[in-house]
Amino acid sequence: MTYKAPIEDIMFNIEHLSSWAEVTELETYSDITSQDAEAVLDGFGRFCSETIAELTSIGDTIGSKFDGEKVILPDEFKTAYDQFVEMGWQSLPHSTSHGGMGLPRALGAAATEILNSSDMSFGLCPLLTDGAVDALMLAGSKAQKDHYLEKLISGRWTGTMNLTEPQAGSDLGRVRTKAVKNDDGTYAVSGTKIYITYGEHELSENIIHLVLARTPDAPPGPKGLSLFIVPKFVLNDDGNPGERNGVNCISIEHKLGIKASPTAVLEYDNATGFLIGEENHGLQYMFIMMMSARFLVGIQGVAISERAYQHALAYAKDREQSPPVDRSSNQAVAIAQHPDVRRMLLRMRALVEGGRALSIATAGWLDLAKNGSDEQSNSAKPIAEFLVPLVKSFCTERALEVTSLGVQIHGGMGFIEETGVAQFYRDARILPIYEGTTAIQANDLLGRKILRDKGALAEEFTSLIKETETQLQTGSEQAKMFANKLAKAREAFQSSLNWLIGQAENNINATYAGSVPILMLAGNLAAGWQLGKSILAAEAEITQGNNIAFSKEKIATACFYAQHILPECELEKTRITEGADSILNAAFAHLET
Amino acid sequence: MTYKAPIEDIMFNIEHLSSWAEVTELETYSDITSQDAEAVLDGFGRFCSETIAELTSIGDTIGSKFDGEKVILPDEFKTAYDQFVEMGWQSLPHSTSHGGMGLPRALGAAATEILNSSDMSFGLCPLLTDGAVDALMLAGSKAQKDHYLEKLISGRWTGTMNLTEPQAGSDLGRVRTKAVKNDDGTYAVSGTKIYITYGEHELSENIIHLVLARTPDAPPGPKGLSLFIVPKFVLNDDGNPGERNGVNCISIEHKLGIKASPTAVLEYDNATGFLIGEENHGLQYMFIMMMSARFLVGIQGVAISERAYQHALAYAKDREQSPPVDRSSNQAVAIAQHPDVRRMLLRMRALVEGGRALSIATAGWLDLAKNGSDEQSNSAKPIAEFLVPLVKSFCTERALEVTSLGVQIHGGMGFIEETGVAQFYRDARILPIYEGTTAIQANDLLGRKILRDKGALAEEFTSLIKETETQLQTGSEQAKMFANKLAKAREAFQSSLNWLIGQAENNINATYAGSVPILMLAGNLAAGWQLGKSILAAEAEITQGNNIAFSKEKIATACFYAQHILPECELEKTRITEGADSILNAAFAHLET
Repeated sequence: MTYKAPIEDIMFNIEHLSSWAEVTELETYSDITSQDAEAVLDGFGRFCSETIAELTSIGDTIGSKFDGEKVILPDEFKTAYDQFVEMGWQSLPHSTSHGGMGLPRALGAAATEILNSSDMSFGLCPLLTDGAVDALMLAGSKAQKDHYLEKLISGRWTGTMNLTEPQAGSDLGRVRTKAVKNDDGTYAVSGTKIYITYGEHELSENIIHLVLARTPDAPPGPKGLSLFIVPKFVLNDDGNPGERNGVNCISIEHKLGIKASPTAVLEYDNATGFLIGEENHGLQYMFIMMMSARFLVGIQGVAISERAYQHALAYAKDREQSPPVDRSSNQAVAIAQHPDVRRMLLRMRALVEGGRALSIATAGWLDLAKNGSDEQSNSAKPIAEFLVPLVKSFCTERALEVTSLGVQIHGGMGFIEETGVAQFYRDARILPIYEGTTAIQANDLLGRKILRDKGALAEEFTSLIKETETQLQTGSEQAKMFANKLAKAREAFQSSLNWLIGQAENNINATYAGSVPILMLAGNLAAGWQLGKSILAAEAEITQGNNIAFSKEKIATACFYAQHILPECELEKTRITEGADSILNAAFAHLET
Repeated sequence: MTYKAPIEDIMFNIEHLSSWAEVTELETYSDITSQDAEAVLDGFGRFCSETIAELTSIGDTIGSKFDGEKVILPDEFKTAYDQFVEMGWQSLPHSTSHGGMGLPRALGAAATEILNSSDMSFGLCPLLTDGAVDALMLAGSKAQKDHYLEKLISGRWTGTMNLTEPQAGSDLGRVRTKAVKNDDGTYAVSGTKIYITYGEHELSENIIHLVLARTPDAPPGPKGLSLFIVPKFVLNDDGNPGERNGVNCISIEHKLGIKASPTAVLEYDNATGFLIGEENHGLQYMFIMMMSARFLVGIQGVAISERAYQHALAYAKDREQSPPVDRSSNQAVAIAQHPDVRRMLLRMRALVEGGRALSIATAGWLDLAKNGSDEQSNSAKPIAEFLVPLVKSFCTERALEVTSLGVQIHGGMGFIEETGVAQFYRDARILPIYEGTTAIQANDLLGRKILRDKGALAEEFTSLIKETETQLQTGSEQAKMFANKLAKAREAFQSSLNWLIGQAENNINATYAGSVPILMLAGNLAAGWQLGKSILAAEAEITQGNNIAFSKEKIATACFYAQHILPECELEKTRITEGADSILNAAFAHLET
């Protein structure tokens, strides 16, 4: 079955949750209408359904191959990538100053979702290029921007992110790759990087590696890292790819999923590198790329969940087994009619819609943070930064659940590879790992965004939620039900917050024992909050007589979220406030090393 | 890394949770001691570690192959199977009347766990043979027992279970395979069966298929099914395999996991079948085999979880990243020291130990039900039947979670196939599907074991739990904490029960919307109950100065279960009693067919 981009729901999210009115009033975007946005996404959706979604099974079966020198993807990937570049899709969210379409970030987020629903292996390449563009745009020199940005934004060149080394995964302070300054101001970069997504391939004319390395006199740990541009082909004076640089692929990994996306081990041997910004500030620049990539990986979670949902729904409407449990008929009915299959389908759908709402809302704040007035930026930036680890983790951890439910709905068929849904289950498994595991996102949330200001920003987040509760309390019975569930979840967050902050001074281990639970709680709550806003928007639509069927379903899905998913916040609170003890208990000799 | 059978924990469970004193006093088992049991399991554990655990990666890489006629497994499987048979391991739980070792069911359950931890693909073959033995033992004629049992119990022949057809999965009433009586009293069986585990292979001299089929005049639906023995080779007069029967493999499936276990499509073309018992009673006999298989599949869930846990623990103790969060050192420490990794490891371990406790306790009741006095049997049988769907679903659904955590702890390494833990994640995915999906188990629990007697048996189950609570309340602080959490979970079960029974008369769809949640709640509660009993036993051990380190860890793991897993019961209650509405809501046009 084919993927169909859920344009109606995406546009609902863009118009009602992404600060669309504010964003489109920004000078950068002044002439963009909803109609324009929808037309762009419609066209992109068509291209993705017809071209990219056809790659999923091919990519999984053939995978990418390494012949000792080159990494070759299936032919269909090259053809599709050429079309993607030719049609200019890479440029969609990027600044017109270097050839981009200059569309709002929410549209970029939507496009990332559509592309990755169609094929995650394919979608990773543009995703990393997006991150490299963001990093160069903010931290690159004028010359670097001139040399690289237009080609990256066009998609003719692609970008990569080189952090991990065998001994340095989550712990970047252990990076050993060396960068020694040459007489001409360039650097000689040497070392081994692993897990480099699209680290080598033939899709594009050049690959622009952004590489964390250490200069000889750098201080130890993360504060001694510098960031370098290391192009696969060093540029000629005319700006075109010239000589091959000293960076080579050693091998690619044999993975559980996303098999067409090559994961390379790269050996840098006196490769020519160009310093970005200043020495020893590399991690700070890399963080720009990481923020972008984390946000977009969260969207990959929504994307693969949507794809899994579409497959499961189609199967459940088609497959007939057993009469209905209420015996309203003696004939077997489509399994979508059985209460438990409905439960699973609605769970999938509610998690997809919650993740989408959260990610598109965050895109709006990211946009205001970057392109808004000082006032807009000051207000949007902290909330956007608070939400990015939530988007990354909520949407990716839930993708495991959603793709697993997709398999379950298919029964025995789900376990057969040809059905296609097992692939989503495999592909999704990387999402809570790469670009910072869930635990790393939790450290980010807890350390940087909760403990550092003693919960001030987190309290601001809850007061925004309270506003939505108040609005919901003036609405329909369903809106009131939702408000009550949201309030309970928000209170669970606040109790947890108080407990964690209270422990931080004398029992920091107990605080961190609750790191992932508070992240999961916050992600659930944040997505629920956005679905609460969706109810308000949908009820307004119904009052105005617009999109009645769609709006009713939106409200119904949100109600499922309120009754089945928001209550998990209370469980996480119990774990956080009553469960540290049993995690840190000393009796676990088997954990001692 | 190699698998090591957790003999100490298994023996703890057998001695303290499997009604061991009662069981070993039965006439059938009168001369068995704990020392015997441990010696047997020790020997089996060694064999499995050395021989079977070596198959896991080979089986996954090579898989089983179909050449158009024969199904060939990797050579190592044939060698290992021959050894398994030669050492007599298949006979472990079976009656001495037909050559079995005649050991208690709890030992059989433990052996199934150890074998399936070592390799699930391998373990499936003996598992199905066990089920065929159980069915023939209870429903076969004297002649059938004489013809088949000794060979099956020795492992020289293997058994299969033929239910599913393309149009008949969960809905067995749709089975179309025909059986027409021949003049000699045998039947000509014709039809297509799918998903037949070990339906064709060369490991054994014969394969004994138990096949559900329909005689020409049979009533429609499940009440018109009869059960037949269809041997791959019809027996000669001397009882040895003779002529090839009319059953052929058409293809085998290409699956997400358990790739060495061949899943066959079998075509029956006037195959000679032998009726078991009476016509039209087939489902009732097949249910014996299904009960056995469901119970043992639950144990497969514990088994693969244990294997995943051992890998994750070894990795977490070895892999060093980042200094501790409490800054007690500036050096990177083993990740097992980081609170969140501890949380994940303990979650894995608590789920393994909970599942093991539940399954070994159930084995004890199954034993008393079958081999006990009338009084023992009357008391044990209902509770055993109540628990089997819980064992099947709790242990298998949790295996998805545990194997996923195993991947997560490995970080990027977890996604690389060579690490081996991704295979556990793939292999485990079949468990909540085969031998009746989780939804089918939920229908069994709700329909047959809750609604039919209006909750009487379920209330008996809760009163047993209350007894354990009372005993725990007289123990240590930890025991009291556990008792309180257990009481809360038990109350959640009772409220849910009352709600579900209350809805059944006028709103049966609402009752069934809570079918899987009540199953999950009950499974969690039942496992928690057994861990509560474990605390009592462990505290008694400590008081007596026995196994102090082990007993302390047992209590600590149970406390983790109480603080992190039992509270999920409350969440399920909320979903059941407040969530049916949003599942059955009429606004979901997208679900209509």
